[in-house]
Amino acid sequence: MTDELIARAAARLTWIRSRMALLADVRERFAESQPFAGHRIGMSLHLEPKTAVLLETLAVGGAEIVATGNHGSTQDDIVAFLRDQGMTIFGARDDTLEQHHANVASVVAAEPDILLDNGADLVAGIVAAGRGAQIVGGTEETTSGGYRLRDELADQVPYPVIVINDSPLKAIGENKHAVGQSVVESFMRITNLMVPGRRFVVAGYGWCGRGVAHYLRALGGKVAIVEVDEIKAFEAALDGYRVANVLDLADWGEVFITATGHPQILGAEFFDRVADGAMLVNCGHFPWEIDVPALRALATGSTEIDTAIERIDLPGERHVTLIADGRMMNLAGREPKGNSIESMDLGFLLQVLSLEQVATATDTLVAGAQPVPDSINREIARRMLATMKADR
Amino acid sequence: MTDELIARAAARLTWIRSRMALLADVRERFAESQPFAGHRIGMSLHLEPKTAVLLETLAVGGAEIVATGNHGSTQDDIVAFLRDQGMTIFGARDDTLEQHHANVASVVAAEPDILLDNGADLVAGIVAAGRGAQIVGGTEETTSGGYRLRDELADQVPYPVIVINDSPLKAIGENKHAVGQSVVESFMRITNLMVPGRRFVVAGYGWCGRGVAHYLRALGGKVAIVEVDEIKAFEAALDGYRVANVLDLADWGEVFITATGHPQILGAEFFDRVADGAMLVNCGHFPWEIDVPALRALATGSTEIDTAIERIDLPGERHVTLIADGRMMNLAGREPKGNSIESMDLGFLLQVLSLEQVATATDTLVAGAQPVPDSINREIARRMLATMKADR
Amino acid sequence: MTDELIARAAARLTWIRSRMALLADVRERFAESQPFAGHRIGMSLHLEPKTAVLLETLAVGGAEIVATGNHGSTQDDIVAFLRDQGMTIFGARDDTLEQHHANVASVVAAEPDILLDNGADLVAGIVAAGRGAQIVGGTEETTSGGYRLRDELADQVPYPVIVINDSPLKAIGENKHAVGQSVVESFMRITNLMVPGRRFVVAGYGWCGRGVAHYLRALGGKVAIVEVDEIKAFEAALDGYRVANVLDLADWGEVFITATGHPQILGAEFFDRVADGAMLVNCGHFPWEIDVPALRALATGSTEIDTAIERIDLPGERHVTLIADGRMMNLAGREPKGNSIESMDLGFLLQVLSLEQVATATDTLVAGAQPVPDSINREIARRMLATMKADR
Amino acid sequence: MTDELIARAAARLTWIRSRMALLADVRERFAESQPFAGHRIGMSLHLEPKTAVLLETLAVGGAEIVATGNHGSTQDDIVAFLRDQGMTIFGARDDTLEQHHANVASVVAAEPDILLDNGADLVAGIVAAGRGAQIVGGTEETTSGGYRLRDELADQVPYPVIVINDSPLKAIGENKHAVGQSVVESFMRITNLMVPGRRFVVAGYGWCGRGVAHYLRALGGKVAIVEVDEIKAFEAALDGYRVANVLDLADWGEVFITATGHPQILGAEFFDRVADGAMLVNCGHFPWEIDVPALRALATGSTEIDTAIERIDLPGERHVTLIADGRMMNLAGREPKGNSIESMDLGFLLQVLSLEQVATATDTLVAGAQPVPDSINREIARRMLATMKADR
Repeated sequence: MTDELIARAAARLTWIRSRMALLADVRERFAESQPFAGHRIGMSLHLEPKTAVLLETLAVGGAEIVATGNHGSTQDDIVAFLRDQGMTIFGARDDTLEQHHANVASVVAAEPDILLDNGADLVAGIVAAGRGAQIVGGTEETTSGGYRLRDELADQVPYPVIVINDSPLKAIGENKHAVGQSVVESFMRITNLMVPGRRFVVAGYGWCGRGVAHYLRALGGKVAIVEVDEIKAFEAALDGYRVANVLDLADWGEVFITATGHPQILGAEFFDRVADGAMLVNCGHFPWEIDVPALRALATGSTEIDTAIERIDLPGERHVTLIADGRMMNLAGREPKGNSIESMDLGFLLQVLSLEQVATATDTLVAGAQPVPDSINREIARRMLATMKADR
Repeated sequence: MTDELIARAAARLTWIRSRMALLADVRERFAESQPFAGHRIGMSLHLEPKTAVLLETLAVGGAEIVATGNHGSTQDDIVAFLRDQGMTIFGARDDTLEQHHANVASVVAAEPDILLDNGADLVAGIVAAGRGAQIVGGTEETTSGGYRLRDELADQVPYPVIVINDSPLKAIGENKHAVGQSVVESFMRITNLMVPGRRFVVAGYGWCGRGVAHYLRALGGKVAIVEVDEIKAFEAALDGYRVANVLDLADWGEVFITATGHPQILGAEFFDRVADGAMLVNCGHFPWEIDVPALRALATGSTEIDTAIERIDLPGERHVTLIADGRMMNLAGREPKGNSIESMDLGFLLQVLSLEQVATATDTLVAGAQPVPDSINREIARRMLATMKADR
Repeated sequence: MTDELIARAAARLTWIRSRMALLADVRERFAESQPFAGHRIGMSLHLEPKTAVLLETLAVGGAEIVATGNHGSTQDDIVAFLRDQGMTIFGARDDTLEQHHANVASVVAAEPDILLDNGADLVAGIVAAGRGAQIVGGTEETTSGGYRLRDELADQVPYPVIVINDSPLKAIGENKHAVGQSVVESFMRITNLMVPGRRFVVAGYGWCGRGVAHYLRALGGKVAIVEVDEIKAFEAALDGYRVANVLDLADWGEVFITATGHPQILGAEFFDRVADGAMLVNCGHFPWEIDVPALRALATGSTEIDTAIERIDLPGERHVTLIADGRMMNLAGREPKGNSIESMDLGFLLQVLSLEQVATATDTLVAGAQPVPDSINREIARRMLATMKADR
Repeated sequence: MTDELIARAAARLTWIRSRMALLADVRERFAESQPFAGHRIGMSLHLEPKTAVLLETLAVGGAEIVATGNHGSTQDDIVAFLRDQGMTIFGARDDTLEQHHANVASVVAAEPDILLDNGADLVAGIVAAGRGAQIVGGTEETTSGGYRLRDELADQVPYPVIVINDSPLKAIGENKHAVGQSVVESFMRITNLMVPGRRFVVAGYGWCGRGVAHYLRALGGKVAIVEVDEIKAFEAALDGYRVANVLDLADWGEVFITATGHPQILGAEFFDRVADGAMLVNCGHFPWEIDVPALRALATGSTEIDTAIERIDLPGERHVTLIADGRMMNLAGREPKGNSIESMDLGFLLQVLSLEQVATATDTLVAGAQPVPDSINREIARRMLATMKADR
């Protein structure tokens, strides 16, 4: 059984690994330079095929790996595969939240000296355990983890933490282009509906919203933008979009997509007005942008009509179609792919080079949360241009 | 077991049927007018979920249905479902070619008086059986079936056959937009690769090639066109594309997509020159545009590295990536969706209204192959505009 | 005075001639082959700088040139320049319509044996004069001239006339791309207004309308289409445009552009409904698409507020802005440029090669109106691809 | 003579004033609130038709106006018109540089208490004259003036100066969209060349370069980007552009456009390699991006072949075409229009509301250079959205 899981993971990794050229280059260098020799990296991250290539790369660089998955996204074949590579991995697909907390605690208890964190959970555990002094430094993947480090954990972190998501490469390469592409791909894959001529309302004109709107319009969709920030709304208007209030668009839109980072963008008042047959999609990180509890409270009935597609009947002989229960559409459906392999390769190189600087040049960094060093951003931008052969 | 198949098909049909608004309108009218009352329609077509909605619609109009699937594409749950609706269906997923021919013969033997044909197989059977005089008329889905009717079967068909694929609505609605959308969706779904900045070579600038090139460029791809017809090449150049010989692009392209309708577009000379790592994709109807036998003859090795993704090693330490063994990419992969539901709804309405004219106004038609009557094209264009609410 | 005019024309021609690469190539060949030696070509065409390069090219090929301008568009410096080159030119900028008819008669009276016609005026003159037997053949620039040749003049023309405007190269290279570009350039040049986010209504989705709509949307405009032909309206909808009735858009549009070929597209009912401040623009050939007389009849006042910009006050404290009095916008303003040099070079090469075939291979042609021979279309497409270096 | 000038300016202003809706709204409010009553505003700015509407607006708000034009751009009819309105205006079109300095000195000597400055010339004069204590505050239009205020003039300016050009509304509304539109319009207007399929190289991917590249590609141009900053180059590559070194593109490009803000982007080494016939265009503020002196030193000959179009012959039987002598293309040609009226309306509203805050709420500001207050940016963004009716 375990052998089967390992074999399945190995097969899934073949294509992905062959297309992560940035990490492949670094692995070659790391095999020589061994930047993580003698270090134990504690990690909290999604355990899926692409991250497996990240872990391999760190291991090639001499790191001992101790990792836990996030709650709900752990893939068992990947866990089996990584364990087979000699890594210490906690977590399984069906873990309860309690079990997940125990996994995080296990990583802390394994006494890592470098951390790759996700939402600052490991840092919080280290602080609580009074083990800060043992830590050389680390990275934090998310913006919200960055806020936590600068707020509730400020002054309690005596070592450097590089916040990956603040890099301009992530805003452009991942939030705008990779999420944009991924959302239009998911929409077509899950619904099998035509894009040209369809009326989309995109709520939020941050990096993700810009990307989603851009790619939908590029494919021939009619796109209107909802944005409360005047400066971003102005940008959307000059980019040629209709910009209006979500309630005023409730009768116009066929597909409503939320990408704001804020809760209850589509709420009770909207559900009152939305036209019969509208489709509700979220692609923000948290499943709160569509107020699903309020929607269900209003509902007179509900039917799962295809994978990730639910019909919800509303009073007044109307219905809406809810995609993926309000969770991120681009991770839903039978065969979700998520962001493109190259965009993950890019994001992981940010992790890897930041961790290398933590391990080998700690003195160039300051204590606490900080952005990715400019030299690393520029180094990666150059590598990406070369890998893409952008000059052709 | 059969009940399970029926239930599965019924579930799969829910979403699709709810989004085929053009057929839904017609069903309502047909329930009254019964245009096919007393007629037995013999059919040869793909038996998959979307076509099931077409068959339902004809049945509501009073038709008795006798149908066979195409060889290799029949879905057993759909067959079970349709039989459960009282239709006579021949064919199963694993039929041999011999069995398939027997199925076609069975449809002919069932003595239909109207035909919905695909490649003129039924017509040929009827002619061979000397049953032409019993036929009121019919439709032919494909352009190549139309050629056959105007060539080898000319003067042997004493009844009208409306050739669906010649309609301008198909060129625009299906070949350009639906195939274009479907190909970019499939590329992203199967490969999980980034489109922006990637170098694509599209061979063929007919309706499909125009659509594929347009959608790839819209998503940020760099697109070059290969086209031997000077007028189409001129159009591509003014549309802003690089237009060159495929051999001159062999070193530039990352992904080569064929959409020409002609064989061996990518052949031995190309394989000699193509750069290491190139991806080869076909989206033409027949699996001959990439000369796969020639490629395999050259190959020094081959590995299936993911669903529909095969690595083929070539002499000189090069390799190429072959998608779906050179068959249509947009029907490949784990969860292929094919053309959008609305574009199929459109194509089926062409079938349904053409068959209605055959059944109820035969005298407006002439014997032999002919285009869809202009009045039907215009009627459907109007309905599609209304269904899309294009005025919003 | 004449010397000054000649010098001015010569200066204006420098840049244009240097960018007409297709004609330059042909001039080189004609200098050798002298296809028009012994022929007198009678012409009716716009006499402006670009056509001067056409006339030079025919003269280099050995032709004797006898030409008249169109009424109202003749440029005196160009006339002086061409006369100085030894050509017989009739017409002046301020000619009356009567004088213009006399000019046409003068060309007929000069006994040409080949005709380059525009609207079939020369042909009509030749037929009236009973001189048809003297004519080897000719070309007709316009579609409407082609209709005339096939209708009122049918069976009266014993020699071949190649109708230039029916070539697919004109539809794509001139009507779609050159007019499209020229209209957006003119709009920006004359009004100095912002395009992104502006609401445009384009009436007509033929080749010109497609081009105008495409370029306006490309620059960030919001574009709605008005089109009575259902098939074209369907195409516009799938191209992602809003498609609606002009009266329903009267309150939405900021700029209304007509490109239909039909009269009174914007008429009394529209003027009743149009929102205050709307701008009315025509880019169709005839100045009848905006019903200017009806507009002036309604007007309560009128002010010329800038070159080619007129404010027309309407009852109900509304006003509209009329551009160029309803004549083609892309020929209006202080410094109109018209279609791009390359698109004219292309159109003129169609003329030149068609006339060469008339002069040297009459037997390959039939009597009466006919399309540009396929071989010429293909030859020119190839040359244009080479000149553009489309393969780079 | 003066009356004629005044009348001419008045006519030119009609259209422009009618399309500056943002300033029109403010004028109405100012007529009541008189924010500048008792203030004398000293100004240094371009004196052309659009700025006249700005000055009118300030005058309506109660300001006494004392202004000088910039050197070389002053339009005499506008000067006459403004004087006729009772303003004190220094400067004429043909002023020497010495005379221009005297004009600046005259504004300083007129003892203004508020300054609208351009390049910090007035501020420097005030500092030199020891009159800083008399000044309530002011605005500075340019980024380079902002640098000067923060550098050589730091600590010498005891009053607030709001730097207009740092506003995000300028970056988006003017640098990206208005300059982008204006450059493509100028290219078409001056050269009359076709854009689709043409090969453009844009040097610089800042806000202006992004806009220029975007609009050229939107019109069908093939666009390559030159950018030394890796992060911006990365953005260009993901936006789908070819990104390469200018020397490597010297043989590929047909039109080279500089928008970098830096000198000698196209210099001797480039001129050595550039392909025959290339066109050189600058749209950066200073005429130094193309090294024109180096180009002329290399030249074997030179001919003015049309307005703003010069042919420069180079050794090796090559030539290049230089537009506008390397000065900003969008201000060149016979009838330059510059940025769109709406974008100037937007920029002037930034000036006007900033000056209002200086005059009426000085205590909300700090001494020295500072960005436009966030509240003003947001207020203007809201007004622009309303004026555009962006919600339609």
